[in-house]
Amino acid sequence: MSQKVTSGLTHECGVFGAIGTEFWPSDVDISQIILIGLEALQHRGQESSGIVTTNGTNFNIQKGMGLVRNIFNNENMKKLTGSMGIGHTRYSTSAASEQVNCQPFFVHSIHGSLAVAHNGELVNKNGLRKMVLGRGVGLSTHSDSELITQALCLNPPEGEINGPNWPARIKHLMQLSPLSYSLVVMLKDRIYAVRDPYGNRPLCLGKILPLDRINGFSNNCPVEGWAVASESCAFLTHIKYVREVLPGEIIEMTKGGIRTIDVIDRPEGKSPAFCIFEYVYFARPNSVFEGQEVYSVRAQCGIQLAIEKPVSADIVGSVPESGNAAAHGFAKQSNIPFGELLTKNTYVGRSFIQPTNRLRQRNVSLKFSPIGVNVAGKRVILIDDSIVRGNTIGPIIKLLRNAGAIEVHIRVASPPLQYPCYMGINIPTKEELIANSLDLMDLASHIGADSLEYLSVEGLVKAVQRNAKSENNKIGHCTACLTGNYPGGVPCEDEW
Amino acid sequence: MSQKVTSGLTHECGVFGAIGTEFWPSDVDISQIILIGLEALQHRGQESSGIVTTNGTNFNIQKGMGLVRNIFNNENMKKLTGSMGIGHTRYSTSAASEQVNCQPFFVHSIHGSLAVAHNGELVNKNGLRKMVLGRGVGLSTHSDSELITQALCLNPPEGEINGPNWPARIKHLMQLSPLSYSLVVMLKDRIYAVRDPYGNRPLCLGKILPLDRINGFSNNCPVEGWAVASESCAFLTHIKYVREVLPGEIIEMTKGGIRTIDVIDRPEGKSPAFCIFEYVYFARPNSVFEGQEVYSVRAQCGIQLAIEKPVSADIVGSVPESGNAAAHGFAKQSNIPFGELLTKNTYVGRSFIQPTNRLRQRNVSLKFSPIGVNVAGKRVILIDDSIVRGNTIGPIIKLLRNAGAIEVHIRVASPPLQYPCYMGINIPTKEELIANSLDLMDLASHIGADSLEYLSVEGLVKAVQRNAKSENNKIGHCTACLTGNYPGGVPCEDEW
Amino acid sequence: MSQKVTSGLTHECGVFGAIGTEFWPSDVDISQIILIGLEALQHRGQESSGIVTTNGTNFNIQKGMGLVRNIFNNENMKKLTGSMGIGHTRYSTSAASEQVNCQPFFVHSIHGSLAVAHNGELVNKNGLRKMVLGRGVGLSTHSDSELITQALCLNPPEGEINGPNWPARIKHLMQLSPLSYSLVVMLKDRIYAVRDPYGNRPLCLGKILPLDRINGFSNNCPVEGWAVASESCAFLTHIKYVREVLPGEIIEMTKGGIRTIDVIDRPEGKSPAFCIFEYVYFARPNSVFEGQEVYSVRAQCGIQLAIEKPVSADIVGSVPESGNAAAHGFAKQSNIPFGELLTKNTYVGRSFIQPTNRLRQRNVSLKFSPIGVNVAGKRVILIDDSIVRGNTIGPIIKLLRNAGAIEVHIRVASPPLQYPCYMGINIPTKEELIANSLDLMDLASHIGADSLEYLSVEGLVKAVQRNAKSENNKIGHCTACLTGNYPGGVPCEDEW
Amino acid sequence: MSQKVTSGLTHECGVFGAIGTEFWPSDVDISQIILIGLEALQHRGQESSGIVTTNGTNFNIQKGMGLVRNIFNNENMKKLTGSMGIGHTRYSTSAASEQVNCQPFFVHSIHGSLAVAHNGELVNKNGLRKMVLGRGVGLSTHSDSELITQALCLNPPEGEINGPNWPARIKHLMQLSPLSYSLVVMLKDRIYAVRDPYGNRPLCLGKILPLDRINGFSNNCPVEGWAVASESCAFLTHIKYVREVLPGEIIEMTKGGIRTIDVIDRPEGKSPAFCIFEYVYFARPNSVFEGQEVYSVRAQCGIQLAIEKPVSADIVGSVPESGNAAAHGFAKQSNIPFGELLTKNTYVGRSFIQPTNRLRQRNVSLKFSPIGVNVAGKRVILIDDSIVRGNTIGPIIKLLRNAGAIEVHIRVASPPLQYPCYMGINIPTKEELIANSLDLMDLASHIGADSLEYLSVEGLVKAVQRNAKSENNKIGHCTACLTGNYPGGVPCEDEW
Repeated sequence: MSQKVTSGLTHECGVFGAIGTEFWPSDVDISQIILIGLEALQHRGQESSGIVTTNGTNFNIQKGMGLVRNIFNNENMKKLTGSMGIGHTRYSTSAASEQVNCQPFFVHSIHGSLAVAHNGELVNKNGLRKMVLGRGVGLSTHSDSELITQALCLNPPEGEINGPNWPARIKHLMQLSPLSYSLVVMLKDRIYAVRDPYGNRPLCLGKILPLDRINGFSNNCPVEGWAVASESCAFLTHIKYVREVLPGEIIEMTKGGIRTIDVIDRPEGKSPAFCIFEYVYFARPNSVFEGQEVYSVRAQCGIQLAIEKPVSADIVGSVPESGNAAAHGFAKQSNIPFGELLTKNTYVGRSFIQPTNRLRQRNVSLKFSPIGVNVAGKRVILIDDSIVRGNTIGPIIKLLRNAGAIEVHIRVASPPLQYPCYMGINIPTKEELIANSLDLMDLASHIGADSLEYLSVEGLVKAVQRNAKSENNKIGHCTACLTGNYPGGVPCEDEW
Repeated sequence: MSQKVTSGLTHECGVFGAIGTEFWPSDVDISQIILIGLEALQHRGQESSGIVTTNGTNFNIQKGMGLVRNIFNNENMKKLTGSMGIGHTRYSTSAASEQVNCQPFFVHSIHGSLAVAHNGELVNKNGLRKMVLGRGVGLSTHSDSELITQALCLNPPEGEINGPNWPARIKHLMQLSPLSYSLVVMLKDRIYAVRDPYGNRPLCLGKILPLDRINGFSNNCPVEGWAVASESCAFLTHIKYVREVLPGEIIEMTKGGIRTIDVIDRPEGKSPAFCIFEYVYFARPNSVFEGQEVYSVRAQCGIQLAIEKPVSADIVGSVPESGNAAAHGFAKQSNIPFGELLTKNTYVGRSFIQPTNRLRQRNVSLKFSPIGVNVAGKRVILIDDSIVRGNTIGPIIKLLRNAGAIEVHIRVASPPLQYPCYMGINIPTKEELIANSLDLMDLASHIGADSLEYLSVEGLVKAVQRNAKSENNKIGHCTACLTGNYPGGVPCEDEW
Repeated sequence: MSQKVTSGLTHECGVFGAIGTEFWPSDVDISQIILIGLEALQHRGQESSGIVTTNGTNFNIQKGMGLVRNIFNNENMKKLTGSMGIGHTRYSTSAASEQVNCQPFFVHSIHGSLAVAHNGELVNKNGLRKMVLGRGVGLSTHSDSELITQALCLNPPEGEINGPNWPARIKHLMQLSPLSYSLVVMLKDRIYAVRDPYGNRPLCLGKILPLDRINGFSNNCPVEGWAVASESCAFLTHIKYVREVLPGEIIEMTKGGIRTIDVIDRPEGKSPAFCIFEYVYFARPNSVFEGQEVYSVRAQCGIQLAIEKPVSADIVGSVPESGNAAAHGFAKQSNIPFGELLTKNTYVGRSFIQPTNRLRQRNVSLKFSPIGVNVAGKRVILIDDSIVRGNTIGPIIKLLRNAGAIEVHIRVASPPLQYPCYMGINIPTKEELIANSLDLMDLASHIGADSLEYLSVEGLVKAVQRNAKSENNKIGHCTACLTGNYPGGVPCEDEW
Repeated sequence: MSQKVTSGLTHECGVFGAIGTEFWPSDVDISQIILIGLEALQHRGQESSGIVTTNGTNFNIQKGMGLVRNIFNNENMKKLTGSMGIGHTRYSTSAASEQVNCQPFFVHSIHGSLAVAHNGELVNKNGLRKMVLGRGVGLSTHSDSELITQALCLNPPEGEINGPNWPARIKHLMQLSPLSYSLVVMLKDRIYAVRDPYGNRPLCLGKILPLDRINGFSNNCPVEGWAVASESCAFLTHIKYVREVLPGEIIEMTKGGIRTIDVIDRPEGKSPAFCIFEYVYFARPNSVFEGQEVYSVRAQCGIQLAIEKPVSADIVGSVPESGNAAAHGFAKQSNIPFGELLTKNTYVGRSFIQPTNRLRQRNVSLKFSPIGVNVAGKRVILIDDSIVRGNTIGPIIKLLRNAGAIEVHIRVASPPLQYPCYMGINIPTKEELIANSLDLMDLASHIGADSLEYLSVEGLVKAVQRNAKSENNKIGHCTACLTGNYPGGVPCEDEW
């Protein structure tokens, strides 16, 4: 989301897949549905995007660097014919920001062509890479997508699945690499939707509604079908949310419908580990995970924060828009009135955001303006969803003080980020994370706040799990970036 | 503002001017300050932008189509040397959307070069144009800027101001054309800041703070100086707001400082006529007009609306972000809790916004998502700042109902738009204005609302004038688009 | 022409005008004919290009920086409707290389709109500029085109031609400024084709052939009409060359046909002064001036050169392709066989042509390769059309020697360039002209030639005038750049 | 070459490789030498281009669609550091014209990274492709380059060359696929230059001269080194031509120098088969194959043509520039004087060349103009190097007749093209080849010639082999496109 530009956290990817069911008109294309889905998933990656569709014979590919709206146009959309397809929107993690790394990745194999898009990062990618290279395959990139694709093509050494048994190949890969990914794998007549056994990355299933129930949709729309997406926000009103793909589940989607091929177990004794930062930071507020709306979880974090770290003040507001839900929760719990403290200038581009400290105050004041009537002469509580590098909050506090705030209390609706993520989130280095270099008091003083407090890890987990539901009653969250407890260990170092 | 895209009102322009005072280092350029100002005025025009600077000898020009951030870059900014300059950001009104109409307009004249930028529209442009053409001048565009510039160059027929007496020329033009404009006219050693005698378009004056008080600003900044801008939001923290330029005032800005050259009277018996829609719609919430913050006026409109058109409900929210202030005001006055009803997807581009009704629902649901927790099972009041064509509000109501709202009441924090504007605002035709084709009941039914009510004209004027102050105790507002009362009449028809 | 890139001479402009005659289908556009004409005139200016057409009511304009093929496309050509139009291709002379200086120049005037394109340069532009500015007109550029256009609009002071008497206005301008230009002036119902009284710049008249005689032309072509162009090469096969426009002639082209309005006299005692360098260097070899093909004049220059400056050798060749005609003439006269000495690499772009001497040898050897079989062990004569800065010929001689030439004799088919041009040709400064800094012997030694000789001025004039014909038996050529004799004097210095 | 645009033959590729020898300064990059080489090879492919360099550790890649001069610039050249590199310029043959097919192809393998560029086409690509896919490798394109690269990475099934024995892998590939390619394969410390056993595609070796012998070259140049290129024209003056790479030869280039690793035999009983169309059409006239300059072979073809197909006429000319050498040969042998008949407009772009017959005459007359003095009233012989589709020659003949030619005799300096090529040349389909649809008389009549004659196959071979030399005295040429005799058979049909 654009409001996160200065904070330093960047997500990796969004995936989307869609297929029309049997009574599908031959002249109807799925590409529009995928395009809308990618636009709605744009917050998960703004670096590149791509769509691959197939009509059962040919595969049509359109990929490029930049935002979805800059890559796809009426002309190239016309070429994306066919009744099934997958799409991807990407922020680079392990591989460089280059054209060649755009997803979906597409190859011809002895058992037919396949296209692959994924969200996540292979924790054991070095080992898997070594195995694939050792089998005599040349890899043209460092991307996990190419690695996953070539690993899927390779016959397992024992040769037991030499034929075109794709489910067996997928299962084999999941056993080799249990963490972390949400995958869509498209063959000429089916899509496999796959979530890693830990359920670390999100993936959900929806039903494309029949045409007459799709308001405002063009005629070029499938009469009915199925879709999978990283987040349910991509479903809008024309796809009905059904459920999450289960950790370890392989769903096969064909014209005939969908079915669960298998659910791969986690290693012995391991719990699910859904990324808790999806709730805190990445997901759109209207997305649904584990049966609950992200907005309501964020509001609950604000409530919890007010319980844990109360302070006396005249008004509660947020850094718009990321802290809004928590601020409303905090206000409700604390009985301090909510008020808009800052308004955002949506036109401020990144072109002027120079990475020097001297210019940061200017940039922040171009981006945010104080609402005088709510700030002047007030003791204000400012809620933010997270503090990463800590270089935006200081100038914001200064803005509020210039506008007449007499006290500024910062409350952060998540715990301090302290550890790197190896499962698909691009987190600044330990040295850059402000929570690693300054303690609370020093940090408050450094940024010019009257007080600064974070939500506790326990408080966050409590707010998240309070209403969380799962199909199999197993709930578990990855808090590695907050606690250093990595559900699947950390990668070994040698680079291939 | 991007949130206005679908509503159909488009503003015309923003102007900015800045000059460094005497003790100004010779190597310091004003262009950065103008650039920041234009970025902060981007909401007033996204079609083209330009900056002209001068070092007292040469004039440097950079203009282009598109957003400020796409026109200016490190390379072309380097050429904008000099210690004074003017800038412009434009939305086309009378002249076509083309490169040739980009402002500032620049010409060589017998009395030296001059650059002109303006916001507004000449009500009597046809007569002025005929006069200028009749003097043997060829006009290369239909823009008011070129017309104003050539009119300034021409010697008045009587020849009484044949020499380089620019104030006399400006005064002469103001008498010929009293409505409407805010102008900045730059010669090689001075800038004239001019506001039309009715004060129809805004213009304000600020003092560039000395370097040591400018946080985060680069060394390339003037030590001290003066600036004028369409809105005070362009001053950020490095320029101190001083006052509004008075209706009819001509301010001369030189290295030696500023002085009022003259204040031109309105025609006999005429009142000031500051555009009331600047408060309702155009201005940034933190801008200040007539001594009051725009946000506070909008909140007051919400209070007034709650008084005039109350309704029983569970929650009050807004169409983000334009209705926020009024919604908070309504909530406060009505004692119904405020809650976020919709979240906005900042990535949704315009490329997919097809102008057909069939696709509008899809576009609206890509752009706005309901917050389930605040909508499901609730009677909601949705506040919007204005309804122009009325084609967005219907789909939004449908979104809320799909998300479980049991009642949806629309309250509009301004009166219905019914008449065209000839003073710089691009308003849809009478036929397109929904308020002209449907009465309240029909409109509510048409858009699917349980009720729909507008703020009254009297209520709006009351909310605006409650705390408004002026230098000379004369307050008056143009409500032509709401009432059809045009302060300076309507233009005659013949086109030149 | 691309082969001239390294030599340093740049021409200024090409003009084209076309109009369909009375029985013209209403749905037929002239723009294609103008476009083809501009492509064929591209060698006269590669910096910008433009077309303006009219259907009698609206004027359609398309202009841009760059080559014709990059400016016009199917989409923008569709907008250039109408049955008459003018076009221009430009190399900058007096005004800067910027979008704003692209021609045709277009303005609205009290007597209707007009579009103007010209080739040439006003020798007295400073005086004319002062007059126009003094009348109260602001000029937005330094281009002669805007100056000419505004001067045409202005009523003469005495007021005797206040009405829309365009021929009188044009005549007035020609008397104010007799040198140098070829002009096309388009009003909504006519085009004036104008050549300066000295006939300094070329302009010729052609008849657009009826459809059934136009091979390979599309249906969208006028059935019949008239055209004017800087060179007859622009007529191709679908326009029949008729004659040159006479020095001082004003031709009016309407749907009803063409007629000569007037032929303005030169100042007392002055002779015609057609630019002799059009023959030597600028024009396409198949263009016709004064009744003779340019190629044949160039061949005659080679014959004359062989008479004046013979040398014993085994083979005669040229720097392709500019020296070809003269080399064939030289070979014929000298009885030394012609042979290709160098082949040109058409792909070598300008991007790598760095302006340092160190890289010049590399660039020349990328651009030209010696033909071993014609060079090795031979005494070669290399003919070039002109030597300007003299920095290409040295590396070429080195290439020939590396390829085994035992003697290299340079013969230049024109006299040394020694003086600036004020009539539309961009000639390097006196200091840059190699002929001004080195005498013949030193220059030969400097470039590594065994001998170097130029054609004499008398020889050139003789070769040019041998077969030249004119309508009125008056022949005269401008040799100012060779002799310093300026037909209309030199401009006064003060700049406006 | 641009003059070939209309004829329909398109070549496939040019390759270049260069390495600096031991006493090489550490700060010197090879990329400039490769860039110049690619510019000089641009005629072999204008679709895309790429360079990969290495400093022994990292590989730097820059590839793109378009001309060399549009892909590389000062900025991206700076990143191409290192003392060895390979480059490629491409015209698509088997694989589509897309970014993903740009060469060099680069992969990471278990034995290190490698980059591959090739010219040619694998006759048995389908079999090789099946083998590679069958080993479990996914192929992302249909390009031979990716196929060759992955085949090189794969361990042969028997496992005898499991280690990083690249020469053994290359040899293995050459035995699997003996036809046709010239390859450069770069590892981190060496380049292998490989020519197929038939010598079908050209490849030659040169020595980079020491700095003090390189005129006009920048300091950033290796002091000494080795280079390979598709044609010797790429060596310019700073690389000394040494010899051709032998058919089947593998040369290893390292910092220590070069050595021949092996020379792979052709299949039993097979002769060399160097593409005879390199002489006729593709190569630059100054390139050297088999000890002879291409220009001299073309001139010899003209001599042979005059012997075989004489005709009485006044003047001999050519379609510039491709027929120049043969025209001079014909003129010499026939004692009919040579003269320029046509001049070419170098500015005519491709944008207007619409592929309809109706517009072809216009395009041809924009591109070529007749030289009246050499055509009017003359019986002319026009020499062209080849006739492929036959759609350009007709309009050219018409141009000549319009200019007054009384007879036009066409002589083609090569035999009629009748068969497809499977070895890297993109020849139109049999149906499109004019020689397959019309006999000589009909064709002459169709194009409007008074007579039309081709050089015989025997005459061409005689002209080519007259002075051809080889290292091992084996000379043989592929004439498949003229005779249907394919040296290595034709590909089997099934597509992978």
